[in-house]
Amino acid sequence: MQQLLVWQNGQVSTNCSLEALPGILADPQALVWLDLLLEDELQPYQDMLSSKFKLSRLTIETLNEARERARLVEQTGYFHLVVHGLAFDVENIEARTPKLDIIFGHNFLISIHREAMDWLASLLDEAHDESEEHLMSRGAARLLHAILDTQVDSYFPVLDVLDDMSDDLEDKAVTDASNEVQARIFRTKKALARMRRVISPQVEVMNSLITRTGDFIPTSAEPYFADVHDHLVRTFEVLDSYRDLMSGLLDVYLTTVSNRLNVIMKQLTIIATIFMPITFITGVFGQNFAHSPQVETDKGYNFWIVLLVMVLITLAQIWYFKRRKWI
Amino acid sequence: MQQLLVWQNGQVSTNCSLEALPGILADPQALVWLDLLLEDELQPYQDMLSSKFKLSRLTIETLNEARERARLVEQTGYFHLVVHGLAFDVENIEARTPKLDIIFGHNFLISIHREAMDWLASLLDEAHDESEEHLMSRGAARLLHAILDTQVDSYFPVLDVLDDMSDDLEDKAVTDASNEVQARIFRTKKALARMRRVISPQVEVMNSLITRTGDFIPTSAEPYFADVHDHLVRTFEVLDSYRDLMSGLLDVYLTTVSNRLNVIMKQLTIIATIFMPITFITGVFGQNFAHSPQVETDKGYNFWIVLLVMVLITLAQIWYFKRRKWI
Amino acid sequence: MQQLLVWQNGQVSTNCSLEALPGILADPQALVWLDLLLEDELQPYQDMLSSKFKLSRLTIETLNEARERARLVEQTGYFHLVVHGLAFDVENIEARTPKLDIIFGHNFLISIHREAMDWLASLLDEAHDESEEHLMSRGAARLLHAILDTQVDSYFPVLDVLDDMSDDLEDKAVTDASNEVQARIFRTKKALARMRRVISPQVEVMNSLITRTGDFIPTSAEPYFADVHDHLVRTFEVLDSYRDLMSGLLDVYLTTVSNRLNVIMKQLTIIATIFMPITFITGVFGQNFAHSPQVETDKGYNFWIVLLVMVLITLAQIWYFKRRKWI
Amino acid sequence: MQQLLVWQNGQVSTNCSLEALPGILADPQALVWLDLLLEDELQPYQDMLSSKFKLSRLTIETLNEARERARLVEQTGYFHLVVHGLAFDVENIEARTPKLDIIFGHNFLISIHREAMDWLASLLDEAHDESEEHLMSRGAARLLHAILDTQVDSYFPVLDVLDDMSDDLEDKAVTDASNEVQARIFRTKKALARMRRVISPQVEVMNSLITRTGDFIPTSAEPYFADVHDHLVRTFEVLDSYRDLMSGLLDVYLTTVSNRLNVIMKQLTIIATIFMPITFITGVFGQNFAHSPQVETDKGYNFWIVLLVMVLITLAQIWYFKRRKWI
Amino acid sequence: MQQLLVWQNGQVSTNCSLEALPGILADPQALVWLDLLLEDELQPYQDMLSSKFKLSRLTIETLNEARERARLVEQTGYFHLVVHGLAFDVENIEARTPKLDIIFGHNFLISIHREAMDWLASLLDEAHDESEEHLMSRGAARLLHAILDTQVDSYFPVLDVLDDMSDDLEDKAVTDASNEVQARIFRTKKALARMRRVISPQVEVMNSLITRTGDFIPTSAEPYFADVHDHLVRTFEVLDSYRDLMSGLLDVYLTTVSNRLNVIMKQLTIIATIFMPITFITGVFGQNFAHSPQVETDKGYNFWIVLLVMVLITLAQIWYFKRRKWI
Repeated sequence: MQQLLVWQNGQVSTNCSLEALPGILADPQALVWLDLLLEDELQPYQDMLSSKFKLSRLTIETLNEARERARLVEQTGYFHLVVHGLAFDVENIEARTPKLDIIFGHNFLISIHREAMDWLASLLDEAHDESEEHLMSRGAARLLHAILDTQVDSYFPVLDVLDDMSDDLEDKAVTDASNEVQARIFRTKKALARMRRVISPQVEVMNSLITRTGDFIPTSAEPYFADVHDHLVRTFEVLDSYRDLMSGLLDVYLTTVSNRLNVIMKQLTIIATIFMPITFITGVFGQNFAHSPQVETDKGYNFWIVLLVMVLITLAQIWYFKRRKWI
Repeated sequence: MQQLLVWQNGQVSTNCSLEALPGILADPQALVWLDLLLEDELQPYQDMLSSKFKLSRLTIETLNEARERARLVEQTGYFHLVVHGLAFDVENIEARTPKLDIIFGHNFLISIHREAMDWLASLLDEAHDESEEHLMSRGAARLLHAILDTQVDSYFPVLDVLDDMSDDLEDKAVTDASNEVQARIFRTKKALARMRRVISPQVEVMNSLITRTGDFIPTSAEPYFADVHDHLVRTFEVLDSYRDLMSGLLDVYLTTVSNRLNVIMKQLTIIATIFMPITFITGVFGQNFAHSPQVETDKGYNFWIVLLVMVLITLAQIWYFKRRKWI
Repeated sequence: MQQLLVWQNGQVSTNCSLEALPGILADPQALVWLDLLLEDELQPYQDMLSSKFKLSRLTIETLNEARERARLVEQTGYFHLVVHGLAFDVENIEARTPKLDIIFGHNFLISIHREAMDWLASLLDEAHDESEEHLMSRGAARLLHAILDTQVDSYFPVLDVLDDMSDDLEDKAVTDASNEVQARIFRTKKALARMRRVISPQVEVMNSLITRTGDFIPTSAEPYFADVHDHLVRTFEVLDSYRDLMSGLLDVYLTTVSNRLNVIMKQLTIIATIFMPITFITGVFGQNFAHSPQVETDKGYNFWIVLLVMVLITLAQIWYFKRRKWI
Repeated sequence: MQQLLVWQNGQVSTNCSLEALPGILADPQALVWLDLLLEDELQPYQDMLSSKFKLSRLTIETLNEARERARLVEQTGYFHLVVHGLAFDVENIEARTPKLDIIFGHNFLISIHREAMDWLASLLDEAHDESEEHLMSRGAARLLHAILDTQVDSYFPVLDVLDDMSDDLEDKAVTDASNEVQARIFRTKKALARMRRVISPQVEVMNSLITRTGDFIPTSAEPYFADVHDHLVRTFEVLDSYRDLMSGLLDVYLTTVSNRLNVIMKQLTIIATIFMPITFITGVFGQNFAHSPQVETDKGYNFWIVLLVMVLITLAQIWYFKRRKWI
Repeated sequence: MQQLLVWQNGQVSTNCSLEALPGILADPQALVWLDLLLEDELQPYQDMLSSKFKLSRLTIETLNEARERARLVEQTGYFHLVVHGLAFDVENIEARTPKLDIIFGHNFLISIHREAMDWLASLLDEAHDESEEHLMSRGAARLLHAILDTQVDSYFPVLDVLDDMSDDLEDKAVTDASNEVQARIFRTKKALARMRRVISPQVEVMNSLITRTGDFIPTSAEPYFADVHDHLVRTFEVLDSYRDLMSGLLDVYLTTVSNRLNVIMKQLTIIATIFMPITFITGVFGQNFAHSPQVETDKGYNFWIVLLVMVLITLAQIWYFKRRKWI
């Protein structure tokens, strides 16, 4: 799906034909924003991109690759920026990091992605409306900032979800010794590793955006990009600290499992300690001899005396376990 | 809540009206300190800040965000510094890190926060009093230093609390095998991670405060800021080493749990090792045969002889366990 | 095995004699590509390399060493680049990292390796064919890029294999408590450590390829090499995150083993808790006294009453275990 | 306690009055060494330090703080160096890191500490004696070197103590499964963390001592300070590697505890495996039936036959356990 | 033991007297190599070193210390390089890292060591022989390279030994649960830590050898030193990855121990689960009542029927354990 927005002479037009593009691009005051949501392949748009926007072969190749590291490449007449979105599927505990290619020059910006992104869709909607201070009225650099800022802001809800999940896992790790907890901790760790791998190069790239794009970003806009950079760094640090927490949680879970074992073994030991001695006593009086004292001296109370002794032994043991806080 | 302090012509006035502000700010010898304790939103003060102090839109936006990374942003005519307080709730083992925005220029300083901070309140009280060497008499840079210094000093009581708690947890981890210990260790670790995440960027920021503010900080004041920086670094290192200790404590706790299991299993094994053999003997003499040696040869002592043998076996076992230091 | 390709005057020749080499190398427009697949020793080719290509003694020595760290050495008239391939044997969980020496100057490139490499073979095949845009038509730098690019691309299938294997191990670590799982995790970790050790210096080397080769790489080709560098960094990061995952998996496996122990101990405890009390009861009524209440008061139902009591005790215990979710 | 040494005109005097100090400090050839061993507070010396040596308020404040990070501060006319001693209490496994403030200018050096330090005391003693090449005869820089060198050398005996203790703990961790071992390992780890935290900034400071003191240290003396720096780095690395060892030791101890559990459980299993089957056999022949084969067919040997069978079963089990190397 | 080799006028002489040394050292074309193998103390050679070679007091002091960190110190007229050998005692699993001091100037090189080093001995032997391209014919820098190169090459056999040992330990950790395995892993880790601590600073030093020795190393020799540096880095990386492996092995060993416990507990549980129910049955029929159904209804088969039931119960349990893959 393709959306073409042209800002020229103080107003935005959305029904501009591709044929008119070269003329518009020749006007330094105009600003063209082309958004491509690829169904599958870049193929249908490839010719248009190389003929109208003069994209190089290397850029086209990179656009075709589904998994790329975030980076900023300078090419003749334009820059190619690769960044990534963040999404977290709580059900399956899986991270998705869809690639977003941004190609920008002094009066055009192309955003290319394979997945629909909500935040980008609402930015495009906003750009369709006439408004007092239009998104595209302040030039390509500020449009780029608007996109990057909205993108990084879209990370924070993901962090909030992770925060809730980590609190939940924390409670579970202490109370629940089932196998599922460890699987969930491990998968969260894996998802965090993936997000981290995607955000980490993005931090560098955002850092070099100001220094390496020459005069593309006016000095007055620099603090805005620095702001985006700071948000990215915070995202990275939060992801990092969650990764640490998950490692810690696995240890906590392991001790919970060990503690559970202690509880089970205590029960076994209590049962054995109580019943072994008294069962032994029944064995003693169950022996067959020609002369057994308990038979020969029995005045009818021996059975009850022995039973009483066994009850007393049991009570003594229970008292002992209570004192050691086992039961 | 808003407090406005104006230092002009060698004395401090606290009842200055907002209307007089532009005039005062035009006097390079004056110094204005505005402290805003936001109830909830920045909204009521937003207009005043942008009209009287010429704060940019980006600054206003950042002020509105509750969670920000520490940083220093240069804007036209002023600097915007974001730092954080540290507080530790021992009961719930939770860290709080309230944000403090400081906006400062050559003759004004604005401190904005959402939580009341004790140390800031006493600084403000001090500034209300006339004193020989007034807090504001040495210019904005020294006022900034006073605030940052007092803030960083407010970290040390938190570190002391952590130190006590860590000693306490250390004792518990070796002696107490209850589930609660691991939960406390983990929560402390989490709280430390949070504090660390807030202090870490603050170290960098403090480092760049001298280099990036140009001539704002006079050379004579630089060692004072370097001192604050060093205190911050020490705080960070202490937090870091506590984090390491907590990881170590979880391991200690795990071995304590394992040791406890050993104690339990020893008891079970002792019980089983003592009673199984002698119960077997009672079984042997409890069998029914037409000719049983213990019956046919019984001269009345067999019961006692068997009992004696069982006592001897038990004593031998107890001696053996004593030698192996099991009991 | 030796393959010699010469690009001169717009066409490729493969049957060029070694004697003609000095003449060709004197032509700055020509390009010579010599590929040596060593059976065992460099010996047979050593003289040719030092006489025709003027390789220094140090270079010859380095070529002779089977295991070398990736690096780029500048020598008079040529550069010596050492890189490594990646191969992963899923059966034995072993990594192989065959060395590839590339020696290149302004109009020649020599590739020397001890193992056949599929991707290099297909590149050579491609170079044998006449094609519109021949591999060697754009000079030594682009030929070098083609080789390095194809080599790094040959890493990605290995990463995919590792990905599948890690998913598989992840499932096994949670469900299977056999000794084999831990051996597999450990060997994977070892293989990853080896790959990492080989890729890590290669990243640096690729980074310095542009800066340290002077004018060898034309500015227009730099983004191509930067692209290869980025792919290498991604490979390194992926290997790194797998290494982390493996460490985490060993922990997961350990808790699985502990959990399995819990399950076994629960069974033992249930059996003991059920049978010890009722066996004790049979002991009580198995004793021999002159006057046993159960004998003297027996109206023919005592046996059944006792049996019923034992059944009730057992049912009560089963109910208790069910409530505690043990069975 | 205060000691004042003055080197002037080629000889040392120890009974110089404070009043004469300004005159002496005015002589660029003289060298004053003041050592202050504070009982508790700096208070009694504060005036003297600020009036005679012109120490700034910031320096005085820092001197008053008991715990400071190692650092080097340049002030007008002097440098303020903060370093720390190392002491290790083997009994309680506790590290002490007393602070030592050194304030030095071109012709004076003040050492201030709250704890007596043996190495410093002997340096002072040495300075009291007349000797051919007096400690103070080569200027302030060489005196500073002498102090720092002796101080760092005083670390090595501590490292030796740690080495012995670590060997001792290593043996204990493998053989002794008592709770005390883990407590000792953990406390050693904590002590090492504290030492490390104190040495780590000292390394930096020593590094910057040459570069940041301008012409204070003559070029000829630089290798001497580099030597001290190298000793410090070695101390740091040794502390670091001990910290790693302690973490490893806790793991070793944990496996020792687990191994001990295995030994206990083996014993329990052997006892149960031997006695359960034969006790069952006695049970079989202890049953009461109207017709019991062992009674009806008894020719007087049945008891012995059954006993023999039980002995054989026991021997078979012992043989089986021997083969599996359990006993 | 002392060996003095002098290269002058194209030939080597080994019987040069110490008196002739000043004359030789004055000849910039000559090259002197002095090797000192100290029995115990440097004392006997100290005077000669300071008078003939003008070594400074600091250098002499450093030579006297047995344990030093690798470093390069520039002194007037010469450089002082400290490096270390590597040796590994497989029997006791202990690393030795004998110090080697190399003092070199433009026309002399002194090597001082306390332990005999095989590789150095053979280099000296080689230097005694007349050969076409003598070791000392290319100047001090190339002689230094020859020594350092041979030294670093002497590390690789140690790495090979470590490789074999690590493979061996890997097998043991999975199969053998004896206490000895963990002790061996820990000691290997400790030995690796020691080697690493010695190699790590050597890498830096080798790196700075080119940059900090000014014109001592001619540009043509730089790649040779870079080669030695690369070998050192590889050694360091291999040591590092072994250290990681050892940490992983301890985890593997711990899970092996846990697995072993599982096997033991399974056996115990199987025994208890089989014998407890059938022993209970014998108990039931061993009770004494006036009216026991099994006695009163006995037609001579009851004993056998009960036995059959017990056999069936046992078979059912065995089938159940087989299905759960316990036996």
